[in-house]
This record gives sequence, C-alpha cells and structure tokens, in this order.
Amino acid sequence: MTANSAIPGSTALDPSLEAAMTSLREARAEALLEFARIPSISALPEHAADMVTAAEWIADRLRGLKATEVEVVKTDLHPIVYGKIHEAPGAPTALVYCHFDVQPADPLDLWETGPFDPFLEDGRFVGRGVADDKGQIVMHLYALEALRLVGRAPAVNLTFVFEGEEEYGSDSLFAWIGPNRSRLAADVAVISDTTFFEGNVPAITVGLRGIMYAQIDVVLSPVDLHSGGYGGAVENPANALARIIASLKGPDGRVKIPGFYDDVVALTPDERAAMAALPFDAEAYREETGVPALVGEAGWTILESKTSRPTLDVNGIWGGFQGDGAKTIIPAHAHAKLSTRLVAKQNPTKIFEALRDYVAQIAPPGVTVTTTYIHGGEASLTPTDHPATQAAVRALRAVYGVEPVFMREGGSIPVTAAFDHVLGLPVVLLGFPQPNCNAHAPNEWLSEANFESGTRVIARFWDELAAMRR
Amino acid sequence: MTANSAIPGSTALDPSLEAAMTSLREARAEALLEFARIPSISALPEHAADMVTAAEWIADRLRGLKATEVEVVKTDLHPIVYGKIHEAPGAPTALVYCHFDVQPADPLDLWETGPFDPFLEDGRFVGRGVADDKGQIVMHLYALEALRLVGRAPAVNLTFVFEGEEEYGSDSLFAWIGPNRSRLAADVAVISDTTFFEGNVPAITVGLRGIMYAQIDVVLSPVDLHSGGYGGAVENPANALARIIASLKGPDGRVKIPGFYDDVVALTPDERAAMAALPFDAEAYREETGVPALVGEAGWTILESKTSRPTLDVNGIWGGFQGDGAKTIIPAHAHAKLSTRLVAKQNPTKIFEALRDYVAQIAPPGVTVTTTYIHGGEASLTPTDHPATQAAVRALRAVYGVEPVFMREGGSIPVTAAFDHVLGLPVVLLGFPQPNCNAHAPNEWLSEANFESGTRVIARFWDELAAMRR
Repeated sequence: MTANSAIPGSTALDPSLEAAMTSLREARAEALLEFARIPSISALPEHAADMVTAAEWIADRLRGLKATEVEVVKTDLHPIVYGKIHEAPGAPTALVYCHFDVQPADPLDLWETGPFDPFLEDGRFVGRGVADDKGQIVMHLYALEALRLVGRAPAVNLTFVFEGEEEYGSDSLFAWIGPNRSRLAADVAVISDTTFFEGNVPAITVGLRGIMYAQIDVVLSPVDLHSGGYGGAVENPANALARIIASLKGPDGRVKIPGFYDDVVALTPDERAAMAALPFDAEAYREETGVPALVGEAGWTILESKTSRPTLDVNGIWGGFQGDGAKTIIPAHAHAKLSTRLVAKQNPTKIFEALRDYVAQIAPPGVTVTTTYIHGGEASLTPTDHPATQAAVRALRAVYGVEPVFMREGGSIPVTAAFDHVLGLPVVLLGFPQPNCNAHAPNEWLSEANFESGTRVIARFWDELAAMRR
Repeated sequence: MTANSAIPGSTALDPSLEAAMTSLREARAEALLEFARIPSISALPEHAADMVTAAEWIADRLRGLKATEVEVVKTDLHPIVYGKIHEAPGAPTALVYCHFDVQPADPLDLWETGPFDPFLEDGRFVGRGVADDKGQIVMHLYALEALRLVGRAPAVNLTFVFEGEEEYGSDSLFAWIGPNRSRLAADVAVISDTTFFEGNVPAITVGLRGIMYAQIDVVLSPVDLHSGGYGGAVENPANALARIIASLKGPDGRVKIPGFYDDVVALTPDERAAMAALPFDAEAYREETGVPALVGEAGWTILESKTSRPTLDVNGIWGGFQGDGAKTIIPAHAHAKLSTRLVAKQNPTKIFEALRDYVAQIAPPGVTVTTTYIHGGEASLTPTDHPATQAAVRALRAVYGVEPVFMREGGSIPVTAAFDHVLGLPVVLLGFPQPNCNAHAPNEWLSEANFESGTRVIARFWDELAAMRR
C-alpha cells in the first residue's frame, strides 16, 4: 500500500478538520504554485533579491496564521524566517524546519516549461522547488490553515525556522543558531526535507548522509596554448585533472583518499538485514533514472551504497574548448567541482583536509593545483524508538493505514546535525515527496496526492506529539 | 641574428623593387587589418557567411593583381580560392597555399580588444588570424603588389590555392584536389603556414606533425541526478571519463593506447644531434608560455617532445555544473575533445581505430561511452637537399644575412601530406611569424618586422626558384 491511496476524505482527522482540509485544496495548490514562481536560487548571487521575496512570502503567511515574533532575519547572505505559535501551555514544543531556497535550474532546455513557471497537471506539480522543499513548507502552512479554519490551535507549541541556504551549505543558519539558542528552545526538531521510500511507501528517515563539497583547480598558463606548438612539452591541465580524479575513486566505487574510511560507523548485521527487508525494487529504480546499469560499491548492495556508504562524485568538470567542431588547444586551466557524501562519524573538515593533502601529494609537476573547500555538513542518525519518532509512526499509520518503514537517505541536510549537536534536540525527519521527484534535476515534481495526504499527516502529527508525554 | 634585424631598406631586392616595397608599407598593414576584421571561423556554423566574405576579399585582390582563372570555388562547407599568374614561360610553377580560416576566438575576455578588432601597436599586429594565417596571405599578395608596381611579373608561374577549412580538417580541399589535379599541376608546393624558430631565427620547416582529433562522450542518464539520492548507486560519467582519459596517457607523457607507437619512424642519432645543436632556449620558451615547468616525454628532450614525438592532449572537457557555488548533482553526461599529434608514418585512421577500440575496452559498465572521429591528417617530412628547399635557404639568407635553420614543427598542416601524396609535389614550408605568436590563443600577434621582411623573402624566393632549373 502506498501514499497514492491516501486521498482527501481521510478519516485520520476529525470530520470538521477534514472538511476544512478538503475546502482548502484549491487554495493550497495555488499557494504552492505562487511560491514556486519565486526563483529563490541560493547559489547564484543574481537571485539575492528573490531570496528576500521568498522569505517575505513565508513571513506574510505566518502572520496570517497568527504566529508571533515573526521576523525575516538578515544574515551575511540570505535571510532566515522565524516565527512561533505557542498556544498549547504545558504541551511539548516542536522546532519546525524547512528551506525555501532551491537548486540552480540548468540545464534549462530539458524543462517542459520554465523552471519557475510551475504547473499542476495529471496529478503532479512540476517546477523547481515543488518537492525540495517549497511543497513541504506549504504543507506545514496549510496544516495550520485548516486548524485555524475550524478555530483550533495546534496541540503542541510550534517554533518555525525556514532557511535560505540549505542548498548552499547553511552557513548563515549555523552562525545564527548558537546566539539564538533560547529562542529555539524545544523538545524535538521536525525537519520536512526528506522523501518517502521508493515506490511511494510512507517512511520516516532515520539516517542522512553528510557532505563535503570542494573544487579542484588545475592551472597551466595564462592563455590556452596551441596543441601543435606545445603538445608534448607541457603538462595538459585537463589530462592532469583527469589523472587526479581517477586517483580519488576506483571503478569499484572505493574512495582512495588515505584515511577516508577511518571514522565510518559500519552498518551492523541487524541494520543490513533490516535494509535488505525493505521493498526496494532495484530494477524499477534503475528504470526511473534511465541509466544503463546500476553500479554500487563493491561488497555492498545498491540500497546500502546509496544511503549508508560514503562516496565521491564529480559534480561538474570543465576546461578548454566545448563548442562544435575542433579547436586544437591545450587548455590554460581545468576545473572540477566534487563532493563526498559522508556517513556517521566522518567529519567534513577532516575529510576535506585528507582530500587536499592527497591531491597536493599526487599533483604532477608543470601545473599548479589548488583544492578549495566550498561547504560541508555532518551525517546524522536518529533512534527509531524515540517517542517523537513513534508519534510520527502513528500519524503516518493513521493517514495511510499501513506501517511506515524506517529508511536512510543518501542526501544531506546539514542542519540536522546542528539541531542535534548545538541545540541538543532529537530530530524527526518527516517528508512526503517521492524519491524520484527530480530534486536538483529538470522537471522536479511532487504528486498532489502526497501533497494532500502529507498536509493531513502533519496536522495529525501535532496531536500525536502532544500525546507523547501523556 | 634574428629576423628583427631585417627592416625596410633591405638589399635583398633590386633598388626599384625595394622602393616599391617601402612605398606600400602603409597599404600592406592596412590590408592585413582589413582582412583580419572578417571573423572567418571555420569551426562555427554561424560564421559561414564570413567565410565567403573572406574568400571574396582574396579573390578581389587576386583579380587586382591580374591573376587569371580567379574563382571562389563552392564546396560542401567553406569555399576555396583559386587563381593563377602564369607569365613566365619555361620557368617552374609553384603551387602557393595558405588558409583564410581562423581558430575560434574564445575565451573572449582575455583579448585586449575584440579578436576581430585588430590593431597595429608597438610593432605588433594583434588580432585573430594575423599570424595564422592571414598575415602570410597578405605577404604573398603584397610581394606581388610590389612586383606589379615596378611593372614586373613573378619570375616563376604561380598557382594559388587558399582554403577555408585548415582549422577544421580540410575535408573540402581534400575532396577537391583529386578532380582538379590538372589545374594544380606544378613543380613545387609552397605552403606559408609555419613559423620561424624560437628566438625569431629564420627557419625552414622540414617536418610537421599530423593530427587525429576525436570526441569521447560518456552518457549516464537523460537528466542530471541528485548526488545524495543516487551517489554510490550509479557510475558517475565525469569520474568515468576521468578514468578513461587517465588510461590514455601517463604522467610520463607516454600514450598507453595499444599499438600507438607501432608505425613511428624514430629520430636518427644524426637528427637528434642536429636538433640538439639548434639555439633552443627552453627557459625562454617556458617563460613565454607562463607555465610553471616544462614537462616532456620521458627519454626525450623538450624540443624533440614538442616537434618529433607523437602525443595526446585533451582539448576540452565538460560535464555537469560549471557555475559559482555548489550544485549537488551527478552529471547526466560528460564529454572530452582530444587530439593526438602524429609523426611519420602514423596513420590518423588507424590511430583513431586504436583509440576507439581501447576506449571501448576500458569503458566501465553503467555508462554509455562513444568515441567519434572529428578529423585527421598525416605528418610530413621534407628533404633538406631538394633544390626548392635550397632556393628558400638562399632567399632567407639574402634578406637576413644569416644561414636559416631547418626545424620541425609540432603543429599540423594536413594539406602538406595531400600535396605530397596526391599531387606528387615536393613541399617547401616557408612561414614568418614567431612561434610564440599565440596562434589559437587570445591576443594572437605578428611582428610588423617579420611581416615586412617576409614579404621581401617571398619576392626574392620567386627569383631563386626561377634559378632552380637554370
């Protein structure tokens, strides 16, 4: 049974609240489309004003929901949106987190329409950010809209933190959390930035990978050189870069940076058995991606390789002539952006230093090689038996009528580790898109069924969370 | 002694011809600037009309010089300019070849002015094509202008072939040569598309490398994939491409494609000794390029490595995210353009097949790898004791007062082998730019001193060539 079977008319909510949910369906969809039209790309400086627009959009909605202390916090880069609805004295407090920044939209020519010209068709929202993560912000806002419509307050106290740099390393949020610890005091953090399990199976994510993102620059000369006049006498920076990258990871998926695996907490036999029992259809997963064959790390299953093992991927590579035809040059320089997905207890800084030192060691003479840190975040693991996790289990079960699964996700939400380490909060990762939603790719999408049912899960979750301490 | 010491007022020509040369200096410079303003980039389809404009520019000039049978020949791609000045009955006939197409101009931001906004300043012409090869076309035209001004015809019969695809593989010329063999009948081919020796030493090029240019495409999926959701479970096409490239050539400069060196004619001990005696200043060469260190093939000198040994260079590489900041994707595909410089008797087709087969053999599962041939040309070697070569020696000696050196050049002029193999002509490679002229790079330049003296060498060469059979 999957989330597709959960439709408006759910019995998970009391009838009046469900009626309010149903009545808001059109407004809810329109709100997502409106929000997704704002091109809030955190990585591109030319979208700085759009980041402010997106933050103000959320703040206005929060004010309309009678939130207090609503603030668009200025930072060194993009704003943070803060607000509270504390109307349940004695009940637990949940710190709710989502992000309103989105990934860059290129390659633009592969989108059905413009990435910021979203639409709802055949049961799917399509547009940059509809799944990652604007749809989930709108679900939270409309869980509250429905409650307000029937004159109720959420059964727990809610503190909201929506950030604008999740796709860019979360630096501003990290800097802001410490000094604002008291405003963030809570019993649990609820992060909605994950997905269901493959096949649209309701799930709670208990493990996230961390990340370390870096750039390698290989410079030969101030200008491109004629490959006839200079070929053979100078190191070619693109050939050198290729040799460096080839030295970082083998065809078996093993990372060759010395010390890379030193701090990895290995999967236990029980964890491997539980993972093997998940309804993971590797062939369906392969078909969705359109790749000719799946290639995991030697010695690990595909599911383990993509969720619970660290890896290293080139995210972009460039240098020299990229046009049609031929240009007989030796490029002046060549570059690669690459990132490692990390697992507990790998430390991004330590991994960067290992990369940098190894690259310096293998860099050939004749070119200048520089490795630069771009951003990083630690992996996280959440206990499955925590009362808040169990409250989420009950909310999902109530809406979908099935037992949700526990899963690990290969992606990174650096703030998860910060909520854990800095604020000392247990974290519940409750997210609703399907894993093949094209997050970070053209034609990102979110099914309206999950959008509808997810909004109901959130409303029910506040009730379950209130019961946590009863 | 270098070409810089050769200035207007040369005694290499009779006084009236030298006076004509001197009087034409300003017009000659203006003609080069005018010609270089035409963006005749053969590799870029959007410049097709500019190719025709450049061809017509030459044809008009030839008509003004009273050439006969002047024709702008249509081909499948860019035109060829043909013409004759046969006014020396009984004298030898020289087939004169240059090319009017130029390399693409990117990266544009490194040019002092626009690449097609050429200027003459501080004794240098700067602009795309001023050295490679438009300057040499203008030298040929103005050697004739001076002769016409004093009422003389060239002492030999001249047949002109100027092509527009030298930087794009010369396919149209190759197709045209065979059927037009009789119109191209000559005693010798004179190609002006080479340079002097390092340090501006007058030189005759006797060896050119060939080329085989190809593209490798590595495709994973229809769209980029999220590096969190898919990292570890799929082959990364950029990592795979890096491993493939790293497998093609080692850090020692040795190409690892099986059979690559099978047909190489090795340098003889005498040739190595002659090359070692050339006034090659490796440190000056390094400083000109701005590279941190020269890196030749293991076991060979820098000069040997860059002129007489085959090599393999990536000319361009791209895939995935190239912007500022970070984008956490696995690229859908990755690409490289690469070329091998070949020496006698390596065959471009055979080398391509060896590359294609080797790449297919080492291509990893999980991605689709394709290797595509772009163009190729054979290497050439000219005897130093041929009477036409010796005529060129005398012309250079007369203008510069020094003995010219014989050199090999690392670049490729595929038509050289065609003139040799198809037309059975000995080839004299007589060119005048300095080797550090930024051909194929930003701020391509040509010294006006070499432009002036080269024009005189050409005029003198026709006299020396006429004497060849006396």
